[in-house]
Amino acid sequence: MSKSIFYHAGCPVCVSAEQDIVTLIGTDNVDIVHIGEDKTKISEAERSGVKSVPALVTPNGNVLHINFGASIEDVKA
Amino acid sequence: MSKSIFYHAGCPVCVSAEQDIVTLIGTDNVDIVHIGEDKTKISEAERSGVKSVPALVTPNGNVLHINFGASIEDVKA
Repeated sequence: MSKSIFYHAGCPVCVSAEQDIVTLIGTDNVDIVHIGEDKTKISEAERSGVKSVPALVTPNGNVLHINFGASIEDVKA
Repeated sequence: MSKSIFYHAGCPVCVSAEQDIVTLIGTDNVDIVHIGEDKTKISEAERSGVKSVPALVTPNGNVLHINFGASIEDVKA
């Protein structure tokens, strides 16, 4: 199985969700991307359909927005 | 690891998320509960902190609201 990508921005909701996702699907199965620290990744996330963080993009390209920490627009600001 | 519980109400967003979650964490690791068909489960979901479906309650009790299909209030109606 190829990896999922977990996009977050360091917010408390993001950190909590990250811990849950890593526990559930295994750290080897997910790449963690902090779009607040690496803003070049924001457009990558947007192209994948991410509207808010935290969000998990599955290997088949579906986007699971998990709870709500911040919108992509907020992270850009 | 004890099981997670995936609460849903049969909506298209729910069905899509269910397939993703089952693929990601494995069918043996999650119980699927349709609160539209079994309304006695609505109060159970609410006690766990579920505000909308689809939602995943992790073994440690955290609630991950995934995308947005319907609010619990909508399911009650």
